[in-house]
Amino acid sequence: MRASQFLIATLKETPADAEVISHQLMLRSGMIRKLASGLYTWLPMGLRVLRKVERIIREEMDRSGAQEVLMPVVQPAELWEESGRWEQYGAELLRISDRHERAFCLGPTHEEVITDLIRNEIKSYKQLPANFYQIQTKFRDEIRPRFGIMRSREFVMKDAYSFHKDQASLEATYQVMHATYSAIFTRLGLDFRPVIADTGSIGGSGSHEFHVLAESGEDDIAFSDTSDYAANVEMAEALPPAGERPAGTQDMTEVATPGVHSIDELCQFMDCAPSQTVKTLIVYGETDGDQEDDDSAPLVALVVRGDHALNDIKAEKLPGVRAPLTFASDEHIKAALGCGPGSIGPCGLSIPCIVDRSAAHCADFICGANKEGYHLSGVNWERDLPLGEIADIRNVVPGDPSPDGKGTLMIKRGIEVGHIFQLGTKYSEAMNATVLNEQGKSQVMIMGCYGIGVTRVVASAIEQNNDEQGIVWPESLAPFQVVLVPLNMHKSERVKETSERLYHELQDAGIDVLLDDRNERPGVKFADMELIGIPHRVVIGDRGLDKGMLEYKHRRQSDSEDVAIDDILAQLHDKIGH
Amino acid sequence: MRASQFLIATLKETPADAEVISHQLMLRSGMIRKLASGLYTWLPMGLRVLRKVERIIREEMDRSGAQEVLMPVVQPAELWEESGRWEQYGAELLRISDRHERAFCLGPTHEEVITDLIRNEIKSYKQLPANFYQIQTKFRDEIRPRFGIMRSREFVMKDAYSFHKDQASLEATYQVMHATYSAIFTRLGLDFRPVIADTGSIGGSGSHEFHVLAESGEDDIAFSDTSDYAANVEMAEALPPAGERPAGTQDMTEVATPGVHSIDELCQFMDCAPSQTVKTLIVYGETDGDQEDDDSAPLVALVVRGDHALNDIKAEKLPGVRAPLTFASDEHIKAALGCGPGSIGPCGLSIPCIVDRSAAHCADFICGANKEGYHLSGVNWERDLPLGEIADIRNVVPGDPSPDGKGTLMIKRGIEVGHIFQLGTKYSEAMNATVLNEQGKSQVMIMGCYGIGVTRVVASAIEQNNDEQGIVWPESLAPFQVVLVPLNMHKSERVKETSERLYHELQDAGIDVLLDDRNERPGVKFADMELIGIPHRVVIGDRGLDKGMLEYKHRRQSDSEDVAIDDILAQLHDKIGH
Repeated sequence: MRASQFLIATLKETPADAEVISHQLMLRSGMIRKLASGLYTWLPMGLRVLRKVERIIREEMDRSGAQEVLMPVVQPAELWEESGRWEQYGAELLRISDRHERAFCLGPTHEEVITDLIRNEIKSYKQLPANFYQIQTKFRDEIRPRFGIMRSREFVMKDAYSFHKDQASLEATYQVMHATYSAIFTRLGLDFRPVIADTGSIGGSGSHEFHVLAESGEDDIAFSDTSDYAANVEMAEALPPAGERPAGTQDMTEVATPGVHSIDELCQFMDCAPSQTVKTLIVYGETDGDQEDDDSAPLVALVVRGDHALNDIKAEKLPGVRAPLTFASDEHIKAALGCGPGSIGPCGLSIPCIVDRSAAHCADFICGANKEGYHLSGVNWERDLPLGEIADIRNVVPGDPSPDGKGTLMIKRGIEVGHIFQLGTKYSEAMNATVLNEQGKSQVMIMGCYGIGVTRVVASAIEQNNDEQGIVWPESLAPFQVVLVPLNMHKSERVKETSERLYHELQDAGIDVLLDDRNERPGVKFADMELIGIPHRVVIGDRGLDKGMLEYKHRRQSDSEDVAIDDILAQLHDKIGH
Repeated sequence: MRASQFLIATLKETPADAEVISHQLMLRSGMIRKLASGLYTWLPMGLRVLRKVERIIREEMDRSGAQEVLMPVVQPAELWEESGRWEQYGAELLRISDRHERAFCLGPTHEEVITDLIRNEIKSYKQLPANFYQIQTKFRDEIRPRFGIMRSREFVMKDAYSFHKDQASLEATYQVMHATYSAIFTRLGLDFRPVIADTGSIGGSGSHEFHVLAESGEDDIAFSDTSDYAANVEMAEALPPAGERPAGTQDMTEVATPGVHSIDELCQFMDCAPSQTVKTLIVYGETDGDQEDDDSAPLVALVVRGDHALNDIKAEKLPGVRAPLTFASDEHIKAALGCGPGSIGPCGLSIPCIVDRSAAHCADFICGANKEGYHLSGVNWERDLPLGEIADIRNVVPGDPSPDGKGTLMIKRGIEVGHIFQLGTKYSEAMNATVLNEQGKSQVMIMGCYGIGVTRVVASAIEQNNDEQGIVWPESLAPFQVVLVPLNMHKSERVKETSERLYHELQDAGIDVLLDDRNERPGVKFADMELIGIPHRVVIGDRGLDKGMLEYKHRRQSDSEDVAIDDILAQLHDKIGH
């Protein structure tokens, strides 16, 4: 492609309303433009990247045995009424009426449409398993679209839906999809982790999210430095500390701590580390039936080490604890336990006490005295107070052992770009999607679903790969692999000839090459091409040609190197791995 | 692809609501399924065809220098208000409101969005010309969607929009698009014609429609049997008959014709050919300002030969004739001219008379006598009545000379699959899309637009290529190029081995091959594959293998031929032209 015949729409200034780096760089490099809130046009430069993502996804999905289909954007309300989601789905489902006042929606997802299709097309267990995918435009009426295409209203998604006669078949396809997603994100050149995700009632292995690791991510991902274990921090198990609990060496002592309520204040006052303290959090217990009044609800104490954070999701799953997790009011705590929440401790507490595994391993610890203005030090479980129920109720922290027993946990932020999920029979049951089984009896199909945010992949790749000059594309996603920058092309016949020859040679070799033949200063061209993030740059100038040389620079290098004209093609092939 | 792992969703019965053959065959061959009125899901088999159409279009558009973009489906009302179309566009524009009650529409076309984009991105004439295209989902809320994807509500379109500094540049790009469309439809293997289309005020060469010729088409296309001239019948010029008007040989005679009103009745009564008669049609003339009452409007007589049809579009463009063309009421005709419309003739008529070129060439003709129950025979222009204004006001008929002077016109029905149009400044002026010109002055850009109905191409290809057994795909569109049909594969190890080997060899050669490994009777497989329309079929059976032979049949052949196993690959390559 010649830059003079291609829309290079770079911007010098960062648009004011672009908060995250990918949004800023996609606007500045001329990849996208905003049409309206949450609606973006893909310019030629950006679309080249999007198409490369789509192609890799399509190739790997095809390889996995999935079959591509294309379902409509506009979906009839009737199907959503069948599944129950016409009512359940919030305002993100954009409901519309056609000219005959019939109700439709813009599809944010296609479970209903595919289930309707397959219940009509697949009649026998012999046709199972089957997995159908599409790469298609979706709409979700976000209340506050932001971060450009990271959280837009209209977006491109790869969604897939599999159908099975039994759970074993679902699990087999789920594993294939797990491997396929790993292959896709590997080919995309992204640093990613498949992350165990919360599945609600389905169980631990029924869902994985695929996260691209990047500081701007909205999720905290805990992963092993040794194995491929990774989970959302909320989901990662904190193992019990190794070995026996140390024996106590101190006597339990009551210490006056006037004005001390937080762990920070306590550590400063007592000159100790937060890990020497425990904190006791009071939440509401589970009750049968409807609780009319919180004031009469039972209380439960949750004890975690002072340097650890309570994990709400783990805690609310425990029997005896109200879900969603609800903290007791200060008034209720005072009335029931005789002091404010900042002075509560596990010693002599009259309510059930659930102790985190790490807190249960503490010796000679410091805690509230259940008396306003006092704490206890040198406290030891089983000597000074009974050790109640022990459970995993904290978030993991960096340095914790990996739950799979291999290595140590690290924590990084991640951007969710994919999700695989064992749906079970949620839709097939509601919509009566059945097949005849081996016994000739009608049986509800079991389903899985598998999504990738195609447009979001582009943004997440940029979040992970950028520097002060702009985007640094992974090789497989770059809009162009090589840019040729001729200096003074419009005056030097020799520069022009060499550039044109090289341009055609690279094109013939099947390499995506951009010839920057614009009538611009070299500085403008260099800045634009770094901003756009093209991996390989070759500068053709008279000074180099005098010595038979061209100037090569990789986007990640700061300095260029001289390469002999005759060697450049071979070198580029080498570097691109073509 | 293995048929056992691919959704073969053929139907034996023709669905009741499918009127046209392409709709019937797309349903029966399992290419599409209806989701709701005018909304279709593309099944794996159909999507393979659609993707091939898309790829050919994309390659040729890229080759033409056009740049691919992707604009949203959902468009803000503001832009349509700027262009004036928010009010003008009928109910086919599906207007919707988002959760914040802001007005949007589902885009039936993207002139507004692209004009908004380009007025922001292109500032100088130096960046022109530029041509942007997308292949994208559109929505048109048809009042009566029908014919499957031929006239659906949601559809895929390739639309392109070009921007220019002057008319000469627009015309150059228009010619490139004309050639590009011809290349696309040629590669698609379709019998098509670029047809001069009505452009309203823009003029004769400003618009072409591309029609696929097929009996089920909704348009009549007149085209030369010698040159590449083609036009909608409404647009094709009927040239004046060659030579001088013959001299009259008969005397004008009044003939009593009781009960004769139509041309058919007249020819039967007079025992003459329709071409010996002329008919006189009374329409309303043009008036200044608003006409309150048709009864006081002026009348105009239009005279065409009895075997010719009046062309409304040509007639209403004439000065003095009301547009749209409106026929005078019987009462008005009687009151003004003294007889009913069935007895009107040009002799002695008191109103202006416009005579078609062919009618003006008649001698000794028969016409109404302006007297109930009488006609005149042996009438001759200029001898018996003055020859009024002469104009081209009839439809061409087969056998007419081609307007370009080359050959004779034929007429066939066509399906419009593409349209190229010189838009001019309609949108750029309304939306103030300007560039700075050579003189540094702001100047409105000139635009062209270029559409292809991508989904409709698939249907039109079927309309043109089918037989009693089903679809007969052109080579470039077939979902699979070759189908291998093993006989008794599940019992004969030899058949299985040969089939598998051939399957892999064809795949390795880059040929789209389907291995019909389903556990079905041969008759079922043959019928399915003919219905689906795969061009090349190879049958692998024990009886043939005994002689080292396979059975080859092209979809268009009725009988198969034996081919030696060792020759089959070379033969298929030959036939496919791969």
